[in-house]
Amino acid sequence: MKLSRLGEDRLLAELLPSLGKDGDVVRGAGDDCAVVRPPRGKNLLLLKCDCVVEGIHFEAATDAARVGWKAMMRPLSDFAAMSGLPRYALVSLIISPGRTLAWVKKLYRGLTRAASQFDVVIVGGETSSTRGATAISVTVAGSVERERCVSRAGGKAGDDLFVTGRLGGSRRGHHLRFRPRIEEARWLTANFSVHAMMDLSDGLGTDLPRLARASGLGFQVAREKLPCNPGASLTNAISDGEDFELIFAVSPRERAQLEERWRKKFPRLRLTRIGRLDRKSKIKNQKLGSGYIHFR
Amino acid sequence: MKLSRLGEDRLLAELLPSLGKDGDVVRGAGDDCAVVRPPRGKNLLLLKCDCVVEGIHFEAATDAARVGWKAMMRPLSDFAAMSGLPRYALVSLIISPGRTLAWVKKLYRGLTRAASQFDVVIVGGETSSTRGATAISVTVAGSVERERCVSRAGGKAGDDLFVTGRLGGSRRGHHLRFRPRIEEARWLTANFSVHAMMDLSDGLGTDLPRLARASGLGFQVAREKLPCNPGASLTNAISDGEDFELIFAVSPRERAQLEERWRKKFPRLRLTRIGRLDRKSKIKNQKLGSGYIHFR
Repeated sequence: MKLSRLGEDRLLAELLPSLGKDGDVVRGAGDDCAVVRPPRGKNLLLLKCDCVVEGIHFEAATDAARVGWKAMMRPLSDFAAMSGLPRYALVSLIISPGRTLAWVKKLYRGLTRAASQFDVVIVGGETSSTRGATAISVTVAGSVERERCVSRAGGKAGDDLFVTGRLGGSRRGHHLRFRPRIEEARWLTANFSVHAMMDLSDGLGTDLPRLARASGLGFQVAREKLPCNPGASLTNAISDGEDFELIFAVSPRERAQLEERWRKKFPRLRLTRIGRLDRKSKIKNQKLGSGYIHFR
Repeated sequence: MKLSRLGEDRLLAELLPSLGKDGDVVRGAGDDCAVVRPPRGKNLLLLKCDCVVEGIHFEAATDAARVGWKAMMRPLSDFAAMSGLPRYALVSLIISPGRTLAWVKKLYRGLTRAASQFDVVIVGGETSSTRGATAISVTVAGSVERERCVSRAGGKAGDDLFVTGRLGGSRRGHHLRFRPRIEEARWLTANFSVHAMMDLSDGLGTDLPRLARASGLGFQVAREKLPCNPGASLTNAISDGEDFELIFAVSPRERAQLEERWRKKFPRLRLTRIGRLDRKSKIKNQKLGSGYIHFR
């Protein structure tokens, strides 16, 4: 059935049963605001919104469940970047009246399946029609212990730079199927002193300079060490974007222990030391080529 | 300058200085997640996202500052509906590369001006390009005291139904300039027992049945009592939508006090008793005509 034949209330009634329930949700989707219990004790509140747009982040013909998966996992990847624990999600759906109810239901299947991987509950949302491209904006709220919150800004000169997984060629499928590195990030901050961290969404060539800049430092990368995906070139690894892997900075004093314990804990996920942070020299940061630049 | 000539980092650098600062914001826009202090003590966390779309909620030629104002005030109106205190906002901007930096700056002026009316801080956001219509999704997080949280569901048979302000004809300008009834809602729950409340965004004819349904009740409305805006007909008042006034249910025992104290507290804002909630009869709820139905 086309959405144009369905009112908002009926669409909501179709979708509500698929949304999870949770003891901490006082009022979920269907009221004016979602009402939930805030993080306990001395934890900090984390908030992140992110969106996927038809023609940019997915194609008109992309499987709707994959679109939903990606729309949810993108902001969750930002939680990984800060070692946060996601908890509640809101979905803002901007959609053409020509799309079908079946498409929206599939989209929500993807959204809820992704959310449930990390015990995230969809507590609300909003739907609007558009004459243009379909877009899905997902906001996630969660928390992090004060002492385990990692930003981009804490890197120190001499820190090793590590990258999880492999880079490049995400557009061949990974970008619709990736799993944010939340467990890995939580393990890292439970066991090591991570000075700075971020997720690679726009490509190493764009994101690493951001981390370095936020830390007031420069960087050196051994290009030949970059862990490329099969079929991906060095240029792909630097510029493609949407890897959703973590890059983080730790002291070289922790290097041996980190590498050894990582292999035992995550035997199927590669961890690569790709370079280091260093003091800003007068020479510009090693040019990495550019990742994906929005609006270009 | 066209956005297509500007990278995301430069756009962010242009916008960041305009965003407010606040002692409770640990990390604002520019990192992976916003990090903020959660509501204190036993308060509940409120979350709401809402979006405005070009061609639906505003026109291509609408003053960008007005668009920003509306985009921020819509979710804040949902906070009013629950007697909540908004605190932090995230802005998801989906925009054509053909728009100018000047347009985006004006949009943000409207967003921040609206936010500052209620001490809301914009702590983050995300920008994506689109080939389609521009859309702005705003998510707001805030809090409410457990005992002052009002939903749509608590109405009791016999309750009086009150409406703030005047209804109808919002599209002639009100929808770009309205002020959410946050102060009024806070005053109401501080002084009276409000059983159910919501904001009128889709028109009384759509929204009142939602409130009644959530409360498991029917309703009676005296059409001739509906407070219409100058130039707006009864049909406009019932069906236009985007009034962003409050409708709420209180016991008739509080009627006299409420009406008297309201006049003193808000002498310039009308309060009208439009009808009452009653037990569901076998006769269908009095037909009100329909408000704005999305997707039609």
